[in-house]
Amino acid sequence: MKKIAFSLLLSLFLLNSGWSQEENVAAIFSNALNSEIAYENLGILCEIAEGRISGSPAAAAAVEFTRQIMENMDVDSVYLQEVMVPNWKRGEPEAARIISRFSGNTDLNVIALGLSVGTGPSGLSAGVIEVQSLQELERLGYENVEGKIVFFNRPFDQTHYNTFAGYSGAVDQRVHGPARAADLGAVAAVVRSVTTACHDYPHTGVTRFREDDENIPAFAVSPVGADILSRNLLIDPELRLYLMNTSYRLPDVLSYNVIGEIRGRVYPEQIITVGGHLDSWDNSQGAHDDGAGCMQSIDVLRIFNELEIRPKRTIRAVMFMDEEIMQRGGRKYALDAFEKNERHYFAIESDRGAFTPGGFSIDASDERVKAIQTLLPYFTPYGIHEIAEGYSGVDIQFLKDYFDMALAGLVTDTQRYFDLHHAATDTFDKVNRREMQLGTAAMTSLIYLIDHLDLLDP
Amino acid sequence: MKKIAFSLLLSLFLLNSGWSQEENVAAIFSNALNSEIAYENLGILCEIAEGRISGSPAAAAAVEFTRQIMENMDVDSVYLQEVMVPNWKRGEPEAARIISRFSGNTDLNVIALGLSVGTGPSGLSAGVIEVQSLQELERLGYENVEGKIVFFNRPFDQTHYNTFAGYSGAVDQRVHGPARAADLGAVAAVVRSVTTACHDYPHTGVTRFREDDENIPAFAVSPVGADILSRNLLIDPELRLYLMNTSYRLPDVLSYNVIGEIRGRVYPEQIITVGGHLDSWDNSQGAHDDGAGCMQSIDVLRIFNELEIRPKRTIRAVMFMDEEIMQRGGRKYALDAFEKNERHYFAIESDRGAFTPGGFSIDASDERVKAIQTLLPYFTPYGIHEIAEGYSGVDIQFLKDYFDMALAGLVTDTQRYFDLHHAATDTFDKVNRREMQLGTAAMTSLIYLIDHLDLLDP
Repeated sequence: MKKIAFSLLLSLFLLNSGWSQEENVAAIFSNALNSEIAYENLGILCEIAEGRISGSPAAAAAVEFTRQIMENMDVDSVYLQEVMVPNWKRGEPEAARIISRFSGNTDLNVIALGLSVGTGPSGLSAGVIEVQSLQELERLGYENVEGKIVFFNRPFDQTHYNTFAGYSGAVDQRVHGPARAADLGAVAAVVRSVTTACHDYPHTGVTRFREDDENIPAFAVSPVGADILSRNLLIDPELRLYLMNTSYRLPDVLSYNVIGEIRGRVYPEQIITVGGHLDSWDNSQGAHDDGAGCMQSIDVLRIFNELEIRPKRTIRAVMFMDEEIMQRGGRKYALDAFEKNERHYFAIESDRGAFTPGGFSIDASDERVKAIQTLLPYFTPYGIHEIAEGYSGVDIQFLKDYFDMALAGLVTDTQRYFDLHHAATDTFDKVNRREMQLGTAAMTSLIYLIDHLDLLDP
Repeated sequence: MKKIAFSLLLSLFLLNSGWSQEENVAAIFSNALNSEIAYENLGILCEIAEGRISGSPAAAAAVEFTRQIMENMDVDSVYLQEVMVPNWKRGEPEAARIISRFSGNTDLNVIALGLSVGTGPSGLSAGVIEVQSLQELERLGYENVEGKIVFFNRPFDQTHYNTFAGYSGAVDQRVHGPARAADLGAVAAVVRSVTTACHDYPHTGVTRFREDDENIPAFAVSPVGADILSRNLLIDPELRLYLMNTSYRLPDVLSYNVIGEIRGRVYPEQIITVGGHLDSWDNSQGAHDDGAGCMQSIDVLRIFNELEIRPKRTIRAVMFMDEEIMQRGGRKYALDAFEKNERHYFAIESDRGAFTPGGFSIDASDERVKAIQTLLPYFTPYGIHEIAEGYSGVDIQFLKDYFDMALAGLVTDTQRYFDLHHAATDTFDKVNRREMQLGTAAMTSLIYLIDHLDLLDP
């Protein structure tokens, strides 16, 4: 009896409770596909906060813009969460030039990797040793590497259907290559851009040094530039490469995660997080990576409101700061949640580009993965064919350190992502409104179903 | 015994017969994803044969270019199939202007529909009556329509996941609207572009008149222009619209289907057709529609050759001429096949844009549909999740009039197609190499499996 009374009470809060779950999912997709607002806001973000690397004025503009968007919506609260972020500056535009007795001088398009130190304004020049892997570098040893520029040139393997497999197979060169080269006495490192594109744009990304080691300048070279350098080395192994960048790192500065929330009507203390990251690389508009994920997350709140689907649990849209360099926003969000003794029920992140969604990747116990997999039939009419165990997202993953909960990542079509990832080509015109909105609808529907069905209760 | 001997003989022809079917499919996808040639050739086609509407010099250039591509490949024969095509000319760039006492003059972006007659160089002007459907037009009747310009303004319904459903729901206005308006005494017709995009480009397409009726000039207006016109009509129902186009139709001219084939080693008399259409609208590069389908079809032959998979049956890549206006190429191909007493085993067409493939649509007997559906497990690792009964393709459909066979269409992600379909926005830069190559691999694999397994034998 008590249970029935409670259900009746509950139904007062669920204005659409007369609809079936299928009907609500259909309404969510229809609303998303007919809405322009998130797409238009992404266009504005890309224009007014281009190159919003953490610590930059553009990042501050992005914080303020997304805060204002949510302030102007009918949500229960909007607030900023303080987070100290790294403050790495690229400096002047980089330069790279092959100097060869045979082929003369050839300029290459390069870009400093994130956290790279500078060469100083006069640059450096040295001989080049090309390797295909970190293992090959190790085998060469100190005697062959000292004083040289190490050129990591293993290309992205295009064979994989899922381009993230190709990316994973090549990105160790960028993340760990420069530090290993430094260990062996190299004076600088140049890494072939980790991309599916065959163009002359370099793709940046973070490179990791151990805090106490000496750093060396580290660059990405465009794929076309990498091919030119490699061919020149075949003709003239003694060529020299001139490199210049003036990157430097300043002390950490204050920035923010931006959070908006709709309070749950039944279990307001239980939190469902949906997020993307607000920072981007400084060389791009960060349209797909990850302005789109932020605008999708805000749009999840809008759809709940417009359809008057009242969630049982509190839904938070979170724009995480500093995913690209130190993930300070994600770490801070999780730590704060733990310290405030919050209860976290579910979290989902969109950070694989605003392409047509094909599934969800679930990081949770087998039992919870199976529970979420029972929802697949709701999604197949919308082209979503796979709910599988897997990685969720860089920002929300830190919640796992503190909470026994389910995390998810929106899985999108991967074919185009690494054409533009971390490059100047990641611009608003590459985003298709419908593809982006399908992702929003998929996340909204998943949150609605998990919440409405109490799917993850112990 | 005889059967075993025959199988041994057969295996001599199948150089990769030591590989499993799964391995051959993997090899096909790997080859396609690592190849640049079809994509590069599409770029050249878009450059040297832009606007290749049937009957145009650009269409002749496209015929010669694709003939040469195949001549330079290791295929058994390349030939042209004569076909008489319509020769409709757009004339001068169109003009449209709202003339209103209240809002002054406002220019609109319009384009004549295919087969439209001209207004003459001085144009015409008349009052405008806006309708949302052919039914609404009928209800208005002669007395309300005579002497007017009919403006069909029902928008593309964005609600559907599959944009072809939205397209089908609106395109009757373009195909049949002008003729119905003419029947009711209208002096011209303007149709809202049938597109998912919200931009200022008009999207053309064919409009149909009965041969013996009097035609009227018929235009598509950009979606932005349609909204402007509709708002102006609210303010000033008495406004006049000026329209000008100088389109005309010349006698039919000789053109060609371009055909290349690899002869089957076991059943050379049985034909498998893979095709796209070579003509495009005159206002675009025809990159997705359907230069890509042509280049994919040629690439199917390249992959069979490079992997040394010897087909049992003859495989023909066919570039059909004149899909957009009268489908003369498809009709001629089917009729010729019938008259030459050919045997046609299977045909597949790619004409839904070179986007990530998600399935195949099969037009065949239930039994054959079921047989092809058994192949689905080969494709799911490559994101292809649906083999369903449905429409094949405009050009190959005529084979059904003469042959008891299976037809298929490559089904691709539909989200972006109607942003660019029949508009100036259908350009090469909108094509992603990997998405295109996945389509090629999907068609190659389907043909390989159907042929290798004798899947469709009675």
